[in-house]
Amino acid sequence: MAKMTLDEIYALSEKTLMDNGCDAPNAAAVSRTITAAERDGSQSHGIFRLPAYIKGLREGDANGTADPTIEQVAPSVIKVHGQEGFAPLALERAKNPLVKLAKDQGIAMCGLTRIRHFAALWPEVEMLAEQGLVGFAVTAAVPYVAPAGGREALFGTNPMAFAWPRESGGVLAFDQAASVIARGDVMIHARDGHPVPEGTGLDKEGNPTTDGAAILDGGVQLAFGGYKGSAIALMIELMAGAMIGEVFSFEAKETAVPGCPFNGGEFLMAIDPSKTAGANFLAHGEKLLGKIENMEGARLPGARRHANRAKGGPVDVSDKILEAVAAL
Amino acid sequence: MAKMTLDEIYALSEKTLMDNGCDAPNAAAVSRTITAAERDGSQSHGIFRLPAYIKGLREGDANGTADPTIEQVAPSVIKVHGQEGFAPLALERAKNPLVKLAKDQGIAMCGLTRIRHFAALWPEVEMLAEQGLVGFAVTAAVPYVAPAGGREALFGTNPMAFAWPRESGGVLAFDQAASVIARGDVMIHARDGHPVPEGTGLDKEGNPTTDGAAILDGGVQLAFGGYKGSAIALMIELMAGAMIGEVFSFEAKETAVPGCPFNGGEFLMAIDPSKTAGANFLAHGEKLLGKIENMEGARLPGARRHANRAKGGPVDVSDKILEAVAAL
Repeated sequence: MAKMTLDEIYALSEKTLMDNGCDAPNAAAVSRTITAAERDGSQSHGIFRLPAYIKGLREGDANGTADPTIEQVAPSVIKVHGQEGFAPLALERAKNPLVKLAKDQGIAMCGLTRIRHFAALWPEVEMLAEQGLVGFAVTAAVPYVAPAGGREALFGTNPMAFAWPRESGGVLAFDQAASVIARGDVMIHARDGHPVPEGTGLDKEGNPTTDGAAILDGGVQLAFGGYKGSAIALMIELMAGAMIGEVFSFEAKETAVPGCPFNGGEFLMAIDPSKTAGANFLAHGEKLLGKIENMEGARLPGARRHANRAKGGPVDVSDKILEAVAAL
Repeated sequence: MAKMTLDEIYALSEKTLMDNGCDAPNAAAVSRTITAAERDGSQSHGIFRLPAYIKGLREGDANGTADPTIEQVAPSVIKVHGQEGFAPLALERAKNPLVKLAKDQGIAMCGLTRIRHFAALWPEVEMLAEQGLVGFAVTAAVPYVAPAGGREALFGTNPMAFAWPRESGGVLAFDQAASVIARGDVMIHARDGHPVPEGTGLDKEGNPTTDGAAILDGGVQLAFGGYKGSAIALMIELMAGAMIGEVFSFEAKETAVPGCPFNGGEFLMAIDPSKTAGANFLAHGEKLLGKIENMEGARLPGARRHANRAKGGPVDVSDKILEAVAAL
């Protein structure tokens, strides 16, 4: 393990991306996202992902010089055309127009299209909540998860993220896959020979298994909470796919280059509670959140991530990852 | 068991409501909702609920002559002031303005306030999808469910409903509680001495139990899928509460009359995919839905309900319920 400051992580990420064909705006946006993940203790979305971003560039699947454009397609709807670039720059471009639209209209949405998504969704919903808005985002992936009752992968691990502004100026946010555990966690459990939780997936014969390797070897993952999580995964496919004119997970796979960030879309929504509730919404929200903060055993979603954030680094980065990045 | 046609159910419901203080528009709207539930085989939301509606009227908690009004609070946001009346009339009043707003703006929302909600949410999201829109709705209740890790009830059973228009003219819809099973199902299992599924709830000491009676006797229900379902229950509290200027479940309880329909709010959202995706969205959606329909073991959410609907009645109604209704 190496200790790295957040500035060092940012600089390493930016240089590696620019050495491999990213222009400055794209390298900066991806590096901000990677650095934010490391800052929050989300190593699985941090510098660990850099080799896949670079693979996307080298394979010609991702456009390192994408210049995402905004189009207003209805009074309360914008779309971002991502030009096959990585999602972070497209999301940064969407921010100001979406915030303004939500504040003008009360509710507004953004369909992000033709992006390569490989990060968590909390950065975009937190960015909205930091402006006093409610944020909601979903995106699909490639097929890993079977619909409830079925044995064939159809849905992505399909995360849903939500953020609410706090009276303190901070935010409440959650960001969770529709699968029981993330794809990367299945891989890590398989590598280390540890069993995955019951309900995580089926082997290639369709039998429940706690062997991560059996899930990866022709098996499928399952949605959290049985048919209810499966319904949510389906909703996410529709919202991030056909609803915004983008591909479903099974369609994304048809053109996917293995090991590169996913192509597809993202649905992002913002609501301005000062319009929909009135002036008191912040204090009102705290009454509920305070009850959870004060309840023995309970905690707010994202609390651990925000505690890591408060530390501000430095963080531990594995030597193996640094070797892989140095080779790029 | 008695066999009743849907017309007979409607007439019995309407007469009982009008005999107990409902005016014609409110009695008709509630009766349409009850009849639709019986038609779809959702007995737990059918005529079985009539005694509680009547209790709400007799206790003076619900206003049988409410005349819900619409206010536009932002270019893409309307609010319905329910005047303490039952939700169905407020929802019927919201329909045309919300559909028009979504078609004009691309996305629109409605905050329903000061209603007494006691029905499923699929009628309102299906009503939007029948107009070619995507529908999404959530509502809170009174505290039944503990946040993940906690032992105190804070969240309602908090349903979320979603509907998508089908190319055939039909709809895909799901409507599911954030709890593992519905409150009524815990009661039925307790009454019949059958164990509830593992994970359904905790007893009053905070220990997991499959004894429904122990959950009802000072225990709590749990969210589906552990901390992920708990996060969704929290999101629903915020969306149907502080975000639209309405009460949280724990606040609803403070003024609730036990056994009557819940007071509180509902968040209803409509998106027009012809604006956000383009003309092809219906055919595109079918590609995903068809894969589920054709996958061995899988089925679309709501499929059983829609199969019951196609039969069109008559339906079985228990003599016990009919006796209870006759006494009103």
